[in-house]
Amino acid sequence: VRVRAGIIVTGTEVLTGRVSDRNGPWLAEQLRRLGVDVGQIVVVGDRPDDLHSALEFLATGNDLLLTSGGLGPTADDLTAEVVAQFQGRPPGLDRALEQRITAIVERLSKRFGGLRNPESTAIATRKQAMVPAGASVIEPTGTAPGLVVPVADGRSGPPVIVLPGPPWELQRMWPAAVEVPAVRAVLAGASELRQRTLRLWGVPESELAATLRRVDGELAGLELTTCLGGGELEIVSRYAPSAEAAQQRLTAAVRADFPDQLFSDGPTVDEIIRAALTDRKWTAAVAEAATGGALCARLAGPALLGGFVGHTEAALRTVIGVPADLIAGSGLVSPQMAGAMAERARTVFGADVGIGVTALSTEAESLGTVHLSVVTPDGEFARSLPGTSTAAELQRERATPLVLHLLRQALTREV
Amino acid sequence: VRVRAGIIVTGTEVLTGRVSDRNGPWLAEQLRRLGVDVGQIVVVGDRPDDLHSALEFLATGNDLLLTSGGLGPTADDLTAEVVAQFQGRPPGLDRALEQRITAIVERLSKRFGGLRNPESTAIATRKQAMVPAGASVIEPTGTAPGLVVPVADGRSGPPVIVLPGPPWELQRMWPAAVEVPAVRAVLAGASELRQRTLRLWGVPESELAATLRRVDGELAGLELTTCLGGGELEIVSRYAPSAEAAQQRLTAAVRADFPDQLFSDGPTVDEIIRAALTDRKWTAAVAEAATGGALCARLAGPALLGGFVGHTEAALRTVIGVPADLIAGSGLVSPQMAGAMAERARTVFGADVGIGVTALSTEAESLGTVHLSVVTPDGEFARSLPGTSTAAELQRERATPLVLHLLRQALTREV
Repeated sequence: VRVRAGIIVTGTEVLTGRVSDRNGPWLAEQLRRLGVDVGQIVVVGDRPDDLHSALEFLATGNDLLLTSGGLGPTADDLTAEVVAQFQGRPPGLDRALEQRITAIVERLSKRFGGLRNPESTAIATRKQAMVPAGASVIEPTGTAPGLVVPVADGRSGPPVIVLPGPPWELQRMWPAAVEVPAVRAVLAGASELRQRTLRLWGVPESELAATLRRVDGELAGLELTTCLGGGELEIVSRYAPSAEAAQQRLTAAVRADFPDQLFSDGPTVDEIIRAALTDRKWTAAVAEAATGGALCARLAGPALLGGFVGHTEAALRTVIGVPADLIAGSGLVSPQMAGAMAERARTVFGADVGIGVTALSTEAESLGTVHLSVVTPDGEFARSLPGTSTAAELQRERATPLVLHLLRQALTREV
Repeated sequence: VRVRAGIIVTGTEVLTGRVSDRNGPWLAEQLRRLGVDVGQIVVVGDRPDDLHSALEFLATGNDLLLTSGGLGPTADDLTAEVVAQFQGRPPGLDRALEQRITAIVERLSKRFGGLRNPESTAIATRKQAMVPAGASVIEPTGTAPGLVVPVADGRSGPPVIVLPGPPWELQRMWPAAVEVPAVRAVLAGASELRQRTLRLWGVPESELAATLRRVDGELAGLELTTCLGGGELEIVSRYAPSAEAAQQRLTAAVRADFPDQLFSDGPTVDEIIRAALTDRKWTAAVAEAATGGALCARLAGPALLGGFVGHTEAALRTVIGVPADLIAGSGLVSPQMAGAMAERARTVFGADVGIGVTALSTEAESLGTVHLSVVTPDGEFARSLPGTSTAAELQRERATPLVLHLLRQALTREV
């Protein structure tokens, strides 16, 4: 018997993609660590009817419900009110809570040069201090308190944890939320749920499907899902500890069929790169054109000494010092240029590892081609990503994982 | 009478956040442009029961359903099968489609050096060529075909558009999906649904709530939602064309109360900056430390000549040439250093506008403080972001929008 939870993410801004939802997946992962299984996340706009029907939908078959968002002071923020009504728990003003929120708002308002309109602030605070009868308050980590709202006495149904929308507030509130007695009671029934991820690079999904079919009979107890993204293929298993041996059989079968392509049984390529740099006490520097800053952002951390982003001849020449005769000879988009960018990045930033990514080719016969180079104390590792005529943006997206895997291979190969 | 649609995003990888969902919001926006209202998006894992219950939930109250994902060749990809069963349309092999997919797979497999295992590929292809009886096939844009699956004859319920998971495939398939007769028939009932966004910078949500309460009686016909993120406050209205006057009243009221803070009635800060640079024929360059490449990535485009990412004294001195005596005098984290970084970025990249962002202060009394500077031909515009002792990561996240708004103000002020 698994303990199951359903998550509702509210806010039209999430529904229409102006803000991408980080709370649903984050909560699902926290719950998984506690042994709770999440089967569905529902994203709803700011309409009370849609929120109500989502609560109804998830209340069946789940032991716990969670909401994020809709706790703000504007009229479209109505999660607390709708949940109170759904659980049959009429809200009332909590005066002590109102005072605590008032103190927080006064402190925060100093950033904006003090309260412009104390009366409107008081109304907003009062709205946020309305607590459903019998609910537990979770202290605010921004201005909005969280709530744990049990179903009305005499009715049956899961309790609802009501959390704020800003990810930072929600994450800081989480430890207190799981300590609320009504939540602890549900979590007490959960048992360990493991999750492992195998990661492959350069394997078509249909080949992996053949491996999985071959060993299918030995994998009882594993819930498998495969996912292709950015050229990587992931196999995620979720299982009870009793199925650990099946997970070992899966790993062995995948390793046997794809010895060179299986690059991780857990950490991401970013984590592998960071660990390899730390292990070797190597620093890195980037000179990137086509990837436009994405590599610097992705590698940011203590080992990255710096980066150069630019695609003009003048900048390449004067800022990082690519030789003028190389530009004249090979042009701005060539394997030689990628190598020179990597080498110059090493030199000007004084790093052990240099990474060079040229601009996209604009020549008709090689439109969209980009050249990559990783220079380490062990030598140069280079690749070219052939162009497709229609998809400069896609090429940029494809170049970033390609150079990261090239870097991983350069850092982790046997020497 | 609005036409409504429900969206189901499948895949455990989305549910657990290893991949962030781009399809749900993208589809919601496309549907909105066609006058179709989306109230709920459900994210489900790869379990048939959870997908089935999501279809059941959304089939009530919606005129059209859409799914994304779960069309791949591995056994956990079962969307087509579950939808076929839900709609009462048993799947059968479409031999002509099988041949077309085979041709595509053979072409793609050349990237991986040819088919390793033609038999497993044939099984995968056959799985993807199973078509529910009476469904329309949408030609593959990757290897998986899309489907439009009507409900079985004699039953009532919305048709289901089945689309692939990779965003690139899904987006390229969309134009063909909306041309399928069963989909056109639903869309024919839709009427224009407008959406406008007002954006404010530097306004607390409670102050905006007061404005909205004051004019509430004049806003009939607008469905409003407000959203706070990265220091910006957005007010999004969705409305039928008949409510255009109400939208004008809303805009006028917000402008009256927040003349300096209302910075847009549509475009994002990124778009405003790009347009302002283009209008003035100005180019820009960045020297950033605390934001670690995020500014370069955010400003990437024709006007950005280049960027420097780095925080070490050596790199600041030798690569972009911040004067040694300035470093000795003011240190690496000071308003003077931000100004010098901006000025040097202008000079070394030959740009009109230079942007400087220092590292985060590590001094006890100013821990986490970061200094920002924008230097244009009109002068320097500077700000400092005070630190909070516990939150270096948050400071980095806060610094990026702050410097973008500083840049916007520098570029759009009346001169």
